Amino acid sequence: MRKNKRGLLVVLSGPSGSGKDTVLGELKEEFDDLEVSVSLTTRRKRAWEHEGTHYYFVARAQFEEKIAAGEILEYTQYNGNYYGTPKSAIDAWLARGKTVILKIEVEGAANIRAIYPECVTVFLLPPSLEVLAQRLFRRESEDAAEIARRMDIARRELAHAADYDYIVLNDQLDYAVSDFRAIIRAERQRVCRRRHMIEEVLNSAS
Amino acid sequence: MRKNKRGLLVVLSGPSGSGKDTVLGELKEEFDDLEVSVSLTTRRKRAWEHEGTHYYFVARAQFEEKIAAGEILEYTQYNGNYYGTPKSAIDAWLARGKTVILKIEVEGAANIRAIYPECVTVFLLPPSLEVLAQRLFRRESEDAAEIARRMDIARRELAHAADYDYIVLNDQLDYAVSDFRAIIRAERQRVCRRRHMIEEVLNSAS
Repeated sequence: MRKNKRGLLVVLSGPSGSGKDTVLGELKEEFDDLEVSVSLTTRRKRAWEHEGTHYYFVARAQFEEKIAAGEILEYTQYNGNYYGTPKSAIDAWLARGKTVILKIEVEGAANIRAIYPECVTVFLLPPSLEVLAQRLFRRESEDAAEIARRMDIARRELAHAADYDYIVLNDQLDYAVSDFRAIIRAERQRVCRRRHMIEEVLNSAS
Repeated sequence: MRKNKRGLLVVLSGPSGSGKDTVLGELKEEFDDLEVSVSLTTRRKRAWEHEGTHYYFVARAQFEEKIAAGEILEYTQYNGNYYGTPKSAIDAWLARGKTVILKIEVEGAANIRAIYPECVTVFLLPPSLEVLAQRLFRRESEDAAEIARRMDIARRELAHAADYDYIVLNDQLDYAVSDFRAIIRAERQRVCRRRHMIEEVLNSAS
């Protein structure tokens, strides 16, 4: 029996502090055919962020060169900065049957849904706004004004959570990781990705 | 955070010998909030079948009394016998947030889909017709004519597999059980079952 022909594209969104990078870090250890596409941004790197894990941090001129060269799949401008998804390897990964995860904010997610209607969208939900604020406080670099601003953004993002296919609650990390893993495993079995298996069985000799 | 309000209704179909009862037996050990609804039939019990596990075996008059009393959710007639789903506890289980599994053939599955449009449908696929035939042979009670007849039915059922939401391949039992488990776990996180969680977070104090 052949494996699924085409890979699975998963869009992951969630407010800053919801735990996207932590959950993805755990998942990458488990799945050997998982690729995480990291976004590009022109905003400044925060102290706790790592180049290539949280974002690729590029200069404005460099970002615009990439747009002109057709290397950006979709982008938005927010707060005076560009945020974009590099075209790079996504289609090649999908053609090789990989599971590709795009970590992306709600507006970018809507763009991706328009380009890849078969994608699966997941929203990572913090258990409460209070817990979210605490998580942001714990990142030492944040000042109170910045946290208040991020909480405003979080509220706006949460208002779009109902547009996603799945809501993963990140109350306890290990549960959230298992829940996300189950979604990937289940979606690989969707009938739209397995029609060839039915054909193979029907055409097999009995 | 409250658990999901309403339970999940899962319809499981698959040809005779695809391993439905074995997979369900394993799953019941793992989930403590899983309820399996067993169908009623008027056909004779086969030697390897158990009352209440594979079917409830009832007389024709008894089945018709139950239809008249409104105790049958849906039924079909096949080969001169009735096959039906007892109304019994399904709605009560769902209201209590349970995951309810209906093991049912393809025609009954279509009836259930019409009654419960939010149900999740899973087709258990044998790896090949040859393996299916071997599994039927291994059940000692089967004679060759009966197996040939069941293989014909299997081919007709397989032609409906593409109408289901998920295709679980039962090549190795432990994989099939894990795959089915992932579908249940993922479907519990569907946005249609978790809107209340988004509201709760948005209404929480920050």
